[in-house]
Amino acid sequence: MRTITWNSDLPAVEMIDQNKLPGEFSLLQQKTIEEVAQAIQNKTIQGTSAVALAAVYGLVLAGFGSKVTSLEGLKLDYQKAASMFKVIQPKTRLLPIAIETIMGFVRNFEGDPDQLRQGVLENAEALVQAELERNLSIAKMGAELINDGDRIIHHGSTGGLASIEHGTALGIIRYAWQQGKRVHVFVDESRPAMLGSRLGAWELEQAGIPYDIIAEGAAGYLMRSGKADKVLFGAERVAMNGDIANSLGTYMLSVAAYDTGIPAYCVFPSYMIDPNIPSGMEIMIENSDTADLLNTQIDGHRTAPESATAVNFAFDITPHRLISGLITEKGVFYPPFFRDLSLAAIKER
Amino acid sequence: MRTITWNSDLPAVEMIDQNKLPGEFSLLQQKTIEEVAQAIQNKTIQGTSAVALAAVYGLVLAGFGSKVTSLEGLKLDYQKAASMFKVIQPKTRLLPIAIETIMGFVRNFEGDPDQLRQGVLENAEALVQAELERNLSIAKMGAELINDGDRIIHHGSTGGLASIEHGTALGIIRYAWQQGKRVHVFVDESRPAMLGSRLGAWELEQAGIPYDIIAEGAAGYLMRSGKADKVLFGAERVAMNGDIANSLGTYMLSVAAYDTGIPAYCVFPSYMIDPNIPSGMEIMIENSDTADLLNTQIDGHRTAPESATAVNFAFDITPHRLISGLITEKGVFYPPFFRDLSLAAIKER
Repeated sequence: MRTITWNSDLPAVEMIDQNKLPGEFSLLQQKTIEEVAQAIQNKTIQGTSAVALAAVYGLVLAGFGSKVTSLEGLKLDYQKAASMFKVIQPKTRLLPIAIETIMGFVRNFEGDPDQLRQGVLENAEALVQAELERNLSIAKMGAELINDGDRIIHHGSTGGLASIEHGTALGIIRYAWQQGKRVHVFVDESRPAMLGSRLGAWELEQAGIPYDIIAEGAAGYLMRSGKADKVLFGAERVAMNGDIANSLGTYMLSVAAYDTGIPAYCVFPSYMIDPNIPSGMEIMIENSDTADLLNTQIDGHRTAPESATAVNFAFDITPHRLISGLITEKGVFYPPFFRDLSLAAIKER
Repeated sequence: MRTITWNSDLPAVEMIDQNKLPGEFSLLQQKTIEEVAQAIQNKTIQGTSAVALAAVYGLVLAGFGSKVTSLEGLKLDYQKAASMFKVIQPKTRLLPIAIETIMGFVRNFEGDPDQLRQGVLENAEALVQAELERNLSIAKMGAELINDGDRIIHHGSTGGLASIEHGTALGIIRYAWQQGKRVHVFVDESRPAMLGSRLGAWELEQAGIPYDIIAEGAAGYLMRSGKADKVLFGAERVAMNGDIANSLGTYMLSVAAYDTGIPAYCVFPSYMIDPNIPSGMEIMIENSDTADLLNTQIDGHRTAPESATAVNFAFDITPHRLISGLITEKGVFYPPFFRDLSLAAIKER
């Protein structure tokens, strides 16, 4: 099922409430662009690709929600919405590209305002369709690397929830499972937000794929003791030399995989490749919210002292030398990565 | 303050309830040996050394709690208690050694039963004193490696709570702090039991030492970005080649430290060296309880699906090649470790 859909009757953007998972499955309808922006900010929806497509549907909503009758007025409403969404996650890869795609169409459009509204919807659906196809292509290509009986360590939220359907690393696992390959997934929790146990495990459960949740520290022991065959994770940004930014813990997982000789694959749509970033050295990592670290309980008891402080980072950088292969919709790339990444990168202008 | 004490008035073994920390500080009194055993099993007290000394005081309690008037009857009561404590954690290092020390005294004792009771208490206090002195010696020697301004990554529960006072890795940090060295500690949570954030952070807070809690995955980023200078952790068992068994996550922390060129020190009393174990290959790691993984909440919401399964291990093995130095009360050892470990090992017979 799709993470986000356009509901033309209300009209509204409809999405799975990720904050309620895994305890409760519920759909939320956002009827204004402010509600869509809010859903992104409070993590009702999260994941670079999912957020970008939510913003794209937000633009659709801006049009159908606008009472303006003149073409220029409607274009201005799109422009306002685009500006609002752009500032929410300006540094992620797909969001600015996708919004610019829609806005390019808006700026060049000549004709009836209602045709523009319809045209924006069609453009949005085309972007969604392209994402679905990219993800399916990733799943197919990646599944060729999965063997029957593979025990796979998975990090982060890389399934349909982080995209629109299928996803990246988890999409590969699901595709291999549908091919009849008996796999077992070790889902690392992915502290501090626990996207692995909250979302990754939930998606595997929906698909009926056998899994066990593990503490992140257990990945190393599983690999050292011959209990794991492969490591899969996603990427938020890929530098031209193959260094990658991904959710916290990816580096430690990768260096343990390297140390134990277990192949580690990084899975992402090619738009994550940033042609302006030569290496991971140039990727800025900002401090991130510490609430998840400080508000964790076990059996209802706080795990941190009341007055504790914490430090958190959303991402870390994994150097390319630790990664066995990069799986994209354009192919599986092996080291050295530079040439393949150059060809695969989406040039912004 | 001491983690465990002998209360001669009640009589009882008194200990800090670690299950209540960090939310609440409370002392529990165990007035029977069954209560002491229960406290070990339900993790009121945890940490190899702390558990061993709790069992030692349990033997003291067995004597003072015994109504028997004959020497032979009293010796039998000690023997029964010793057998009970030995099976609780038979594979840890100090517990069998410490119980054997007491029981050697008991077996060879000739005289009045009340003198035996008093003698066992004195032997127990001598074992506690020896542990205190070992820990202080570790703290002093280790503190020489700490520089003013050091930012230290700490893993697990290594303070007084895991021992009787001072502790190992955290004892070094506290000693360096008391020397006036301004240190900052990054306390990794140490999933799944969260002994780092629950106990390590609490002890640092008591000592007034500045710290921040981090997700285990953040250690790698801190090291890669030049934000950490040293890594300190304890050990549960040390093989003769310097491979160590320690709480889950130690291997991944060590391999990241090695990869980034940050020194990683393993800190332990010399009785953790096991002369019967040539290398980490021979250390068995059993599956461990998964309740902490499955019963975690953030802001009251479960982080794992209701029907999720999990896999857990109490320990992992870190190969000696990743460790910069071993800090014991007998000195700081540098690679290759074999000769120093051979000299430092306590031979069991």
